[in-house]
This record gives sequence, C-alpha cells and structure tokens, in this order.
Amino acid sequence: MAADEAADEGIKVEAIVIDDDVAVQDSLYTAGRRGVGATVIAEKIGGAAAERGDSLEAVVSVIKQVNARGRSFGIALSSCIPPASGNPIFDLPEGEMEVGIGIHGEPGRRRAPLGSAAEIADIMIEAVTSDLAAKSGANVLAFVNGMGGTPLLELYLLYGEVDKRLRALGLNPIRNLVGSYITSLEMAGASLTVVELDDNLTALWDAPVHTAALRWGG
Amino acid sequence: MAADEAADEGIKVEAIVIDDDVAVQDSLYTAGRRGVGATVIAEKIGGAAAERGDSLEAVVSVIKQVNARGRSFGIALSSCIPPASGNPIFDLPEGEMEVGIGIHGEPGRRRAPLGSAAEIADIMIEAVTSDLAAKSGANVLAFVNGMGGTPLLELYLLYGEVDKRLRALGLNPIRNLVGSYITSLEMAGASLTVVELDDNLTALWDAPVHTAALRWGG
Repeated sequence: MAADEAADEGIKVEAIVIDDDVAVQDSLYTAGRRGVGATVIAEKIGGAAAERGDSLEAVVSVIKQVNARGRSFGIALSSCIPPASGNPIFDLPEGEMEVGIGIHGEPGRRRAPLGSAAEIADIMIEAVTSDLAAKSGANVLAFVNGMGGTPLLELYLLYGEVDKRLRALGLNPIRNLVGSYITSLEMAGASLTVVELDDNLTALWDAPVHTAALRWGG
Repeated sequence: MAADEAADEGIKVEAIVIDDDVAVQDSLYTAGRRGVGATVIAEKIGGAAAERGDSLEAVVSVIKQVNARGRSFGIALSSCIPPASGNPIFDLPEGEMEVGIGIHGEPGRRRAPLGSAAEIADIMIEAVTSDLAAKSGANVLAFVNGMGGTPLLELYLLYGEVDKRLRALGLNPIRNLVGSYITSLEMAGASLTVVELDDNLTALWDAPVHTAALRWGG
C-alpha cells in the first residue's frame, strides 16, 4: 500500500518480498514463505547501499541477494498478548515450546517438549543450513534474534551453541548480531537467521550505521 | 573482595557503594539502601572521567556525585527463575505487581493490582522525585530500565509517561536511556532512575562510548 501511494505521487519505488523463514511453506495467514529475521539484515545492507549512492536498481539487487542467501527458523517458549485483544495469540502449556513460529504468532511446524539451548540450536541449525545449502568454507552472518521476552544472557547462550555448530559444518560466522530486533511483543523465544556473505555484503554490513537499534562505525 | 585482592597486589583502588534505590531502607538481605539503575549511569560517567585522564580521586568524586544525585524505583510484573534452582524467586499471582523490587528479587514495598503504564509512572515518579528533591528547572537524565523480560516497546511507552510527569514537575529530561541494562534474568518489569545533571556530568555522559551495551559518539 505504501508503495502504491508513493508511486501515485510520482516517487519511483520497488517492493521486495522477504521470505526467509524455512519453517512453513504456507501458513494459516500467508501464502509462500514468511519474512522474518532476514528483514533486519536486508534493511541494514540495503540502507548502506543507498547511503553510498547506489542506484535504486542496485539497492533492489543487493536486497534480493540477502533474501536469496538468507534463511531463518524460530521457536517460542511463550505466547504474547496483543494489548488490543488482551488474550494470548496461542496457548502454550508449561514445559512445551512451539517450533517454527512466525513473528505474528502463526502456528509453527510442531509442538515439542521444552529443549535445552543446545537442543534448540540443533533444530535451528539443521532447518536453516539444510535449506540454505551453503558450500563448506562459506562466510556467513549469524543472527540470533529474541522474540521480545527473552533476556540477552539467554540469547548469547544460544548464540554460543549456534556458533559451534556452524563451524562444525565448515561455515565461518565472520559477523554476528545478537539481540531482540524483530519481535512479537513480550513473547519468549528466539529465531536464527543465517545469511551467506560475499565481500560486497560484508562491506555493506560493516558500513557505519546510526539508528535506534543498530549503531556502529562512523 | 575484588578491591581487597587488587589492593594486595599493590593496585590503588577505591570501593564506592551505590545506594540509589528509594524503595526499601533495609531489605531481607541488605543493610541500607540498595544499588540499582544508578550503577549503569555511574559506570558510564566514571568510565568517561577515567578515559579523559582524571585522577582516581576525581573519578571517585564524580561517581559519588552521580550516586548522591541519583534515585531509582522498580516494579516487577513477573518473577524470574534462576537456572541453578529452577524455581521462581517469588510468587506473583496473575493481575498483581510487586512494587519496589531489588534486582535480586528482594521483596518490595508492597503488592498491588497490576496498573497501567500511567499508573506505574505515577508511583515511580512520586517515589523518586520526592526523595531526590531537585529544584524546579533542574536538568536530569531519565533512565527507564527493563528487568529482562519486558520488550522495548513497553519500556518506551513507560518512558513517555515518565517524561510528561518530569516536565510537569518542572524538571528537564535533557538526556535519557531506555532499555534492559541492569536486569533480573527474564523478570518482566521496569525501574526508573533519575539523575540530576550538571554540565560536567552531561559532558561525561555524552563522551564517546563503545561497549557491548552502550555505543555512541567516537
């Protein structure tokens, strides 16, 4: 809708669909794959390309590249309560976790007994790397994202497990991001996003950024 | 203990007790007031003083100033579960909040029905500003800190209510910090810290910083 309105005003826009979530092909509410953590990476990298003066076509191309080389998978340890409804968006019994969630609480792949960080990392890494199918030796950005209610301490614990497994698979996590950046209110849980990097994407990721959420360089 | 050990090795150290929490004079576990959010501000400002080459005495003096001009008050919307014990540190029924918590889950002043952000801001502002007793027109740093399980969106909502009330009291929140910086695992809730600033403290707060949690300037 924003793209349509901008186009009506004569602003040249391109809409790009991010669909990095490997958990669900078609959900209750969506057709095709959903966009989750790769959105954050695409916006940072696309923003840096625009900032250095790339053409709209070039910015579109680099964002499509992030999406093509990015995969995500999330789990929830609790539901969340949208203020407008006052009710949890799903019911998750004590001691269970929802495996393969979307950021709007769409049902996941399955419900499972609550696992350790190591077990959750096993599930995430298998889902993401088997679908991404990066060659051994590839450089990647690994992004452990909190759903809103999970403290940073636990996200770093999970990142440690993720990092070990990526290296065991021959992948090099040369960049990482750990924190709650694309969230579902106070939901407890996390998602993993892995994006295969090349020199251009790495340079755009490293470029100075000064936003509310990301801030480095400059 | 760290100060004793450093002193044994001939390193000149000074220990400073931060006691900014106005909620409880003596808790179950502590004598005197507890140190909470002002710790973050004192470390940033003291760190900046050390970075510019101030003497140990001068750094101590500026940290003591932050403590003397800082006050905090926190509330919890949930307990948290230390991994070692596996049990909540206190039991908080649905629909209630603990008013006046410490960061280690020490009992607060009282238990109350869950309030809105505006009602919580009323409680926090009254407790903090009545004790700080800053003159009308004073410049302050307002720090809304999450306890670990409360999303940034809700912390900013609370900050908005805090900001309005500070201005209504004639105080100028010329600097702020909003986020989960001094936490109790996955506890839901927040604390408010208000520190009265002068030009020197403001300059030290603004000085470039590059840590895992705070990152600006430079």
